[in-house]
Order: sequence, then structure tokens, then C-alpha cells
Amino acid sequence: MMTALTALSREATRLDAGDALAPLRERFLLPDGVTYLDGNSLGPLPAVVPQVLGDAVSRQWGTDLVRSWNTNGWWEAPLRVGDAIGRLLGAAPGQTVAGDSTSVQSFTALNAAAALRPDRTLLVTDPGHFPSDRYLAQAVGTNRGLELRYVPPAALVPFLDAEGDRVAVVSYSPVDFRTGELHDMGALTDAAHRAGALALWDLCHAAGALPLRLDDLHVDFAVGCGYKFLNGGPGAPAYLYVARRHHKSLELPLPGWTGHADPFGLSRDYTPAPGIAQARIGTPPILSLLALEAALTAFDGVDLTELRAKSVSLTEFFLRCATELLAPLGFASVTPSDHSRRGSHVALRHPNARALTQALASRGVIVDMRAPDLLRVGVNALYNTHEHLFEAAHHLYSIIRDADYDPVSSQPGLVT
Amino acid sequence: MMTALTALSREATRLDAGDALAPLRERFLLPDGVTYLDGNSLGPLPAVVPQVLGDAVSRQWGTDLVRSWNTNGWWEAPLRVGDAIGRLLGAAPGQTVAGDSTSVQSFTALNAAAALRPDRTLLVTDPGHFPSDRYLAQAVGTNRGLELRYVPPAALVPFLDAEGDRVAVVSYSPVDFRTGELHDMGALTDAAHRAGALALWDLCHAAGALPLRLDDLHVDFAVGCGYKFLNGGPGAPAYLYVARRHHKSLELPLPGWTGHADPFGLSRDYTPAPGIAQARIGTPPILSLLALEAALTAFDGVDLTELRAKSVSLTEFFLRCATELLAPLGFASVTPSDHSRRGSHVALRHPNARALTQALASRGVIVDMRAPDLLRVGVNALYNTHEHLFEAAHHLYSIIRDADYDPVSSQPGLVT
Repeated sequence: MMTALTALSREATRLDAGDALAPLRERFLLPDGVTYLDGNSLGPLPAVVPQVLGDAVSRQWGTDLVRSWNTNGWWEAPLRVGDAIGRLLGAAPGQTVAGDSTSVQSFTALNAAAALRPDRTLLVTDPGHFPSDRYLAQAVGTNRGLELRYVPPAALVPFLDAEGDRVAVVSYSPVDFRTGELHDMGALTDAAHRAGALALWDLCHAAGALPLRLDDLHVDFAVGCGYKFLNGGPGAPAYLYVARRHHKSLELPLPGWTGHADPFGLSRDYTPAPGIAQARIGTPPILSLLALEAALTAFDGVDLTELRAKSVSLTEFFLRCATELLAPLGFASVTPSDHSRRGSHVALRHPNARALTQALASRGVIVDMRAPDLLRVGVNALYNTHEHLFEAAHHLYSIIRDADYDPVSSQPGLVT
Repeated sequence: MMTALTALSREATRLDAGDALAPLRERFLLPDGVTYLDGNSLGPLPAVVPQVLGDAVSRQWGTDLVRSWNTNGWWEAPLRVGDAIGRLLGAAPGQTVAGDSTSVQSFTALNAAAALRPDRTLLVTDPGHFPSDRYLAQAVGTNRGLELRYVPPAALVPFLDAEGDRVAVVSYSPVDFRTGELHDMGALTDAAHRAGALALWDLCHAAGALPLRLDDLHVDFAVGCGYKFLNGGPGAPAYLYVARRHHKSLELPLPGWTGHADPFGLSRDYTPAPGIAQARIGTPPILSLLALEAALTAFDGVDLTELRAKSVSLTEFFLRCATELLAPLGFASVTPSDHSRRGSHVALRHPNARALTQALASRGVIVDMRAPDLLRVGVNALYNTHEHLFEAAHHLYSIIRDADYDPVSSQPGLVT
């Protein structure tokens, strides 16, 4: 095994030496002694954030006070940050708004999509979709009298081609949050449209990690969070994309005052603002929103195709480590080996995944796990290196070899 | 008029000299040269916030990274901050959750209240309620097939005594956001209960300004924002109070993953967490939430009854200034002179309210206005002085006397 270790170590060094994106790592403040492979749960701190947030607090809030809504651009922030996110989604300006949580945005999108297909009776989602998406689909389905049908992504195209004429909306993620499997957004969106249904995508595990082409693929709705690959900070505001062609016929379930056409007119009835601004709800959490805005500058000048190529190289290398070092020790990858079907994390199945995650953490390697038995290794090509992945694999190898973990240990789960 | 000015100036000095709460002002970082009378729109920066937020960013996010959900108490923050707010509401622990916006919380509360009265057909609200509350009541009414009835607070008790058996929920604010009129929460809540209806209060303009007694008054639901008298920062997270007696029968419209009984179990169906935790929705904006938590320490050791007494003294003094100095110049107060019917702001009607608000700002006195003609002067007894109110009145007097304003000027409204 020493040979395999040495070979993989050298390969990591070689791959990192050829990494044209390595300087991007300087855009993050990563702590010494930590190998961070959990950016798909919480992105690390971008270097610009402390100064920007300090200014937002001390000058904008502290000195300019309420005037900042006008003079420091707070009022426009949800649309401005929405457009900045839109650039990473392949969305032209004016279709994305930042704010609220992914759950609230998902609720908004599900209701709005269903309202656009009032004669249809089915809401279709992935049985393996992220829990909040499923819970909200159940709630929206019950509230609107729609039947919720669970169809795995692999079965969706035939399902839609057969029964699609009853489907109002399909709600999926391009990347499975457990296995890392990447689905074909274009093919699934096209199948939805052939059936006359609308497509809603949850981009939490895709935005910032992959090039996305919402406009080109004619996606109808998309939502996502700001705190994973966008590195916007813990619980950073989410976003909602609505294709422009739907703006004039939107019926949104949460008509908040900031989405009013004349928000300061105090008029008795609700008149939605034109465009995506109608999807604003209440007063947005400006400090979290400005931290997210600053974090997005870590993508300035970055070619998402190059970023994706490096991400693929990172996961490819980790899968090689898994095969050569870890498979003999009882680990089995559940992530596709075909990189065109892989997102930006790799999940290894092991019965002691929870305890191993803790053992890795005690050695400074941060990954996470998903119950009951998946150890999840996320990569973000903005700052991760092949060496990071070699370290993770090497530590896992040593931990198992030396039985340096407590198989019955448990800790509360970490936030996805 | 010189005599009145001199007398009022001396009276301000005298009242401030006897102000036992004056040292609380040191808990805020207020800019030099600014007289801030708009804390009912955006509270100023509490002195502890920059350090706390700096630590949240650099140490908790930057160094501890995703582990902070456990090790730095991020996961419990919505309940911990909720309880801290609850102390200002007269709410025992375990009934208040912080998060989302007032609009989202209002939507949640309206739906949950209506679901507890499934056989009733009316939703009753104030025609002068804050726009978002009205828009959401309209949306919830339409969605649930409830008729929305507008009844002014003064007419609510007789209305409920006559037609209350059809009413599911009454949704009101104790303080009118325009006139500052304070309604009798106890009497209105009792009337709702006599009719078998539930009471929902929007506390945006009351919490932190007045002693509140939600538990004692048997209020059912309450919501409010974190950024006015709670000083939590721009768009600070809102909160939802649900009386404990309703927790076991709640049906919430937005079942997000963080409100699940086993949020990391990834189970297929939604099982609400026990207690108020079921009202958590998505991942909360931690930076904004921790800023709010820090801001709430400005109330540590403060007796809300004393704070209210000072607030009454401040508004009383400003009303005296209005009567003696400003009424002859065309200003008319729309705020009750009876302090038991007055919240923590005074609104003066003047046809040039917008231009006068700008003229005051150019002299360093920040107030706000509400269309079309109300100039709104908010006081927060944590940091305002009688001298501040004298300055505001004196400047208004001078501006009118010298015609030192542009009556046709206009600017976008500021956020309420």
C-alpha cells in the first residue's frame, strides 16, 4: 500500500502544480491546520467579507443610519445581489432576486408554478430530493389539491412522456445532495416542457460549482441557497429565479410590502411590482445580504468552465484515491465515476461514516456525513487542492488501519 | 415666540437632568452631529454589535467553519434569540422563535390561527394596518376561502360582540404605525376570546418600546421585526410568538427542514418538532441573527416600565413643543394627547411633510414621513433625550420661519 500512497501523493503534487486556478485560494481566509472539504455545507470566509461587513455595520448602519436604504443601496440589494447570482446561473439580469431562505423561495416557486398550470393535478418531485423541498411540495400539494408523485430522476423522462399531460410542475435538483449524482437539466427540462409542465430546479448543490444555463435551457423557476458554493456565510439569503416570460402572469403566495409596485404608497390593496421585484417579500436581512454580495466577488473573472474542469479533476482524483486506497478497507463510492454525471462532491458509503467523520475532524480534515452511512467529501475548485483530497484519503486510510476511531461515537448532524 | 423657545429649552434641560436612564445612551454608537428620531424605522447601532459580529465572522465562520452550528450555538440561535425577545414581550421561554421577515411570520401566524378555527369564515383586520399585514391577510383570506373584513380598532369590540361568532382571527397592531395611537391589547384580545376568535398582534412598533404582557393577556399569536425598537440592524430577523396552549395543534403553512422533529434524519415525511421549534422554517441568516442577539443586550437590566415612563415623557414634551411652537405654523398632531393611548412616536400633519423631513435631515435631525402628509418623530428612551426633541421642534420652527425648505422637493420614501 505504501506504493499506492506514494503514487497518489506524487499525483496530487503534479496535478496541483498544473493548477492555473490556484491563486484563487487567496480570495479566502482558510484557517491553518484545517483541510476544508465541507464547502458544500458552508463555504469558507471570503477574504473581502470582514472589511465589507465592517463597513456595512459601522459606517452604513452606525453613521448613515436609516438613510442607507437610499444612499448605500440597501433598497436595491435584493435585486442587485440577485443579478450577481444570476451571472453564475446563466440568467440575464432582472430574473433573480436574493432573500429569504431556500425553503421560503421553494414554497414561492412551487405555488407560482402550480398557479401557472391551474388545470393540472400532479406535482412531481424526486423521492430523494432534499427534505425541505419534499416537505414543502407536500404542503403545497395538499393546500392546492394537487397529487404529489415521487419519480426518481432516471424515470422522469419516460414518466413525463407517458403521463405528463396531468403534470403542473416538476421539482428537482441537478445534483443529488447525498450521492453527488448530476442529472441532465436540459433533458429533464425539455421533457417537462414537452408535457406542457413547468420545471423548477433547486440549485443549492450546483450554483457556483458548475456552469449553469438557466436561460438557454428555458428553465422556468429555480431556487438555491447562498451559503454553499456561493460562500455567502452561515444561512446566507437564498434566491429565486423566474424566467422573464412568466413575470406578467405570476401569482405569488407571499405578497409582502417590498414587492409592491409602490412600496411606500401604503395603498390598501396589493399591486405587484413589475418584473422579478414582485417576488420580494419582507424587509431583507441586509447584513447577511451584503456579506453574500461581497462573497460573490470571489467569482470575479473566474471562468466557470475552467472552475468546473478543476472540480472534476479534484473529484476524479478523490475517486481514484477511494478505489486504490479505501475500497479495500470497506468504503464504497456511491458517486458516478462518469464525470459528466457527477456534481462537486463524492460520497463514500461506510457503516461507521459518522465516527469516521469525527475522527477526520480530530485530524483537521472537515468533511460531513449524511445519515445513516454516507461520508460526504465536497470540493470547491476556488480553494481546494488535490493535496487536500490526498490528505483526506490518507487520513481515512490511517484511521481505519490504526482503528483510530470510536465506532459507537455519535454527534448531532451538521447542517447540510 | 422667543419666550416659548427659551422656556421649552430650559424644560428640556431640566427633564434630561432628572433622567435616570441617561447612561443607557452609552450602549449605542450614535454619530456626532446627528439627532436621531427615526429608531422606529431603524434602530441605531448598539455598541456591542461590531465586536460580536466581528467574532461571528472571523472566528466562528472563518476559523470554526461549519462546526459552529454545534460548537458556537448557531443551531439553537433562532430559539435562543426568540427567548431573548420573549423577555421583552412578557412571554415565558419556549414560545418565541426568531427568523425570517415579519411578512413571512405574519403569513405563518395568519394561516396557523385560521387553521385553529376551521369552521369560521371571517378574518378581521385594521383598515389602517401596516400594508404587508393587509396584503398577507388578503392573500391568506383568498387562499383559505375566508372573507376579509376591515374593522377599525375603535369599532372592534362592538363588532366582535355582535358578529364575532363567525370570526376566526383578528389581526391588529397595538400601535398605529402612522398616528402612534396605542390600542388596548387586553381589551381587544378579551373581546376576540369572548367571541371564540383568536388574536394576532403585530408588535413591530411596540416591542422594546412598551412593556408587553403576551402571556398575561392570553394573546394567541404575535409577530414583529427586529430592526425598530429592538435595534437589531437593517432587516434584522423577525419573530413569531405562539402561546404554548396552541403548540400541539398547530398546522403551519411552511414546513421547512429546520422545524422537523429530526432535522438531520432526512426522513421522507414531515414531522413537526415539539413546541415553538416547529415554527422554524429554513436555514436562518446567522450573521443578521447574531447581530440582533447582541443588540438585545442593550436591554439588559432595563426596567421596561421605567423605559416606558421616559418614552411618555419624551413624547409628552414633544407634543408640548408642537402645541406651543409648531401649531401656529400649520402643524397638527394626529397622535393622542392621552399618554395611555400613545405609543412611542408622534406624528404631525403638514402639507409639506416630505420637504420638511428633508430640510430637517440637512440640519442633522433624522425623522421620517408617511405619505402623504405625516411627519413622524420616533423616540427610543434607550438613547433619546428631551433635548433631541427640542432640537427637532426648534429646527422645524426655524425652517418654516425662514422658509428654508423646498416645498416641491421629493425623495423616495424611507423604509418603515
